[in-house]
Amino acid sequence: MQQVIEYLKQNQSRFVEELCQYVRFASVSAQPRHHSDLQRCAQWLVKHCRAIGLDARVCPTAGHPIVLAKTRPSRKASGHRPRILVYGHYDVQPPEPFDLWESPPFEPRIQGRSLFARGASDNKGQNLAHLKAVEAYLSTGTDLPCDLVFVIEGEEEVGSKSLGAFLKTHRKELACDAVVISDTGMPTPKHPALTYALRGIAAFEVIVHGPSRDLHSGIFGGTVDNPAMALCQLIGKLRDRNGRVAIPGFYDDVKPLSAFERKQFKRLPFQESEYRRFLGVPKLFGEKGFTPIEQRSARPTLEINGLTSGYQGEGSKTIVPSWARVKLTARLVPDQDPKKVVKLVREHIRKLCPPSARLEIKCGHGAEPYIVSPDSPQAQAALNALRRSFDCEPVLIREGGSIPIVNEFKKILRADALMLGLALPDDNAHSPNEKFDLGCFAKGQAMSAYLWQELATACSR
Amino acid sequence: MQQVIEYLKQNQSRFVEELCQYVRFASVSAQPRHHSDLQRCAQWLVKHCRAIGLDARVCPTAGHPIVLAKTRPSRKASGHRPRILVYGHYDVQPPEPFDLWESPPFEPRIQGRSLFARGASDNKGQNLAHLKAVEAYLSTGTDLPCDLVFVIEGEEEVGSKSLGAFLKTHRKELACDAVVISDTGMPTPKHPALTYALRGIAAFEVIVHGPSRDLHSGIFGGTVDNPAMALCQLIGKLRDRNGRVAIPGFYDDVKPLSAFERKQFKRLPFQESEYRRFLGVPKLFGEKGFTPIEQRSARPTLEINGLTSGYQGEGSKTIVPSWARVKLTARLVPDQDPKKVVKLVREHIRKLCPPSARLEIKCGHGAEPYIVSPDSPQAQAALNALRRSFDCEPVLIREGGSIPIVNEFKKILRADALMLGLALPDDNAHSPNEKFDLGCFAKGQAMSAYLWQELATACSR
Repeated sequence: MQQVIEYLKQNQSRFVEELCQYVRFASVSAQPRHHSDLQRCAQWLVKHCRAIGLDARVCPTAGHPIVLAKTRPSRKASGHRPRILVYGHYDVQPPEPFDLWESPPFEPRIQGRSLFARGASDNKGQNLAHLKAVEAYLSTGTDLPCDLVFVIEGEEEVGSKSLGAFLKTHRKELACDAVVISDTGMPTPKHPALTYALRGIAAFEVIVHGPSRDLHSGIFGGTVDNPAMALCQLIGKLRDRNGRVAIPGFYDDVKPLSAFERKQFKRLPFQESEYRRFLGVPKLFGEKGFTPIEQRSARPTLEINGLTSGYQGEGSKTIVPSWARVKLTARLVPDQDPKKVVKLVREHIRKLCPPSARLEIKCGHGAEPYIVSPDSPQAQAALNALRRSFDCEPVLIREGGSIPIVNEFKKILRADALMLGLALPDDNAHSPNEKFDLGCFAKGQAMSAYLWQELATACSR
Repeated sequence: MQQVIEYLKQNQSRFVEELCQYVRFASVSAQPRHHSDLQRCAQWLVKHCRAIGLDARVCPTAGHPIVLAKTRPSRKASGHRPRILVYGHYDVQPPEPFDLWESPPFEPRIQGRSLFARGASDNKGQNLAHLKAVEAYLSTGTDLPCDLVFVIEGEEEVGSKSLGAFLKTHRKELACDAVVISDTGMPTPKHPALTYALRGIAAFEVIVHGPSRDLHSGIFGGTVDNPAMALCQLIGKLRDRNGRVAIPGFYDDVKPLSAFERKQFKRLPFQESEYRRFLGVPKLFGEKGFTPIEQRSARPTLEINGLTSGYQGEGSKTIVPSWARVKLTARLVPDQDPKKVVKLVREHIRKLCPPSARLEIKCGHGAEPYIVSPDSPQAQAALNALRRSFDCEPVLIREGGSIPIVNEFKKILRADALMLGLALPDDNAHSPNEKFDLGCFAKGQAMSAYLWQELATACSR
């Protein structure tokens, strides 16, 4: 192992050069004019994987191709060797607006310990770090304690539309004990992080129908229910003063936070006044009894995303509107089930609707919440790898958003995902002047190298 | 008087022909291309007024001209003669959509007892009826018991923008004991009506500000108040389950309906099931303890006219919106004061706003409610005139909307308005195939003839 770490150290400058080559491809998946850049980027990646000793190929899909790379069967193989799938993506966000970039987005620029380029942090630098760890093993003749499969797709920034079908078609070839994803973040360079849970989601649209057309509020107002008022009264009852969702049964399946988890969250850097200023609100507001970090990542919510009714232009129009609509999404936490939540919300809203109005409820997309127990051997292995590479105590974090592919891996391959993000909050992912910290790049490589060891031990237990 | 009534009867067919001439002018005040039609219509009207024996002239304004016509000083005049201002308008609504008209809007067509044309009912037929009554007096040499001033404007359908300035400038010339307006409606031909009250209005816009920008509901949701939710909860508290406005003090100045008024309203034709079907609502809803007729005309309301927040397009967008807005109007009844109501609403909303959100309240236009006591001698005179001409018991009605000019007359000339509308509910005012009932036209002339007598008696008391 010493050899592997030494190899990584000695080859850093070349690795940075290779990352520069990688980010020069304008692999913008959202823009058809970059179609060939994506193809060329995938080809480069395959060539690179082969050069470091992997079996690699470009797999065409209905959209942009997926790069599949695998370690060769070990000669020393004895009994069950753990098999790990490493996920990443080579496509990038559109670089626009160009005028806000301090240097051209696809011409990498190094300043201090940062490499500036579109895709440097999200996600080329992060997936290349894993490849460099494999290279270190293979180049130094060190036995890789796991079999590895890299799946690096080209459609993450446009919704990973082809990934599900690819996983299903290649289910056997991709069978694995765990999935490793470096596409999330860490709070600071001193807080390497394992993201062990994600919130799920359930989307709704509720329309309250009133009169068959907008009515003159002078001639008819007073004799019919105002659907916008009915909607406000109905929706206003869905959250109480303590910030709790007031739908019977909504919290029934919420797994309580353990004392261990809450202790972990306390270690995360968080300045309430700074956070408040950042959001621009006069006062934070959330579910009583939980810290903001818990509220935004580990507790379910019900948010209004949009309201529409009647006249919205300048001045006033004296009508009783014909209908009023609200768009809602519930963020869900383990073990809430989107289908069950949809049913609960639906039933409760129906109960609240007065007889003077007619209700229409549309259900949109849903995604299950996700969690890997932080006590699990795999999670412990990940924490050990972070601890060894970053030389400080890692933190456990939950992500408030959803990462749909994680659920795909779970559903199709039945494998848990270890999210070991190397991005810093100031990396400007999706924004102009995206950068990747070269310290994170180097430590990420070491983390990956340690991870295969740790996971091998964990999986063989 | 018998002579006057006889004259009216004998000249009906000529009067109908004259109304046909009047409606041939496409005096569409909203459309600049009809500018000269308005001018020509005003000229025709002046000529017509002169022909029947009035002193008449076209008064230019910043907009379309106003026709001013007056009876000549009576030779028999002794002591104080009541002076009555008759208001009407010669401008009409745009006729579009043309394809829904069964005959061209400015080519009058008589079918049965209806005259079809744009402006026939609103308002040419109604103001011509008053002129024909004067003609009958003057042509038969019958002494007119009142001095009359006709103010027939050309901007009613575009907000009567020039009328206020005109009334102020001609304050002396227009001094009067009462204003008579035939520009409202009557429920059926058997229910001639005096509209003795109008609702006032106060408009507001309330904006709840949350975070300084739309936030990702996954990353931040749970730690900040959702301004759309705060708005719903706040606005939802402004009306209770009994349909009452839940703002302390809101009803303080509401003059209770008298037993006499409520008895009058019971005489009005009203079919609840038919009304419900017409509005297209599953169930009527209004303030408990009042009939729909009372609710829509004699009770104050607070209506949401529009709601706006966050994402309103297709599908969903997972944000906590930065702000949410509601447009509200309160309909007011005597003796509520728009300024006082604005203050009450403002204060109450401020009290309801949680510290997690920032409030912005904008106040729009206001109009005072209007009432003439149905017991007043003038109102009784109007009812007598209706009774004599229509040969049935007139009804007393309140109008749920506002007619701003009525307040102008009150404020500038200090004269009360008697609203004696001759339009039927199926006259299609503002719609294709507008028509005027020729029975209403004839009875309206007689009503006007009786009215001058009745008012003279009432005013001299």
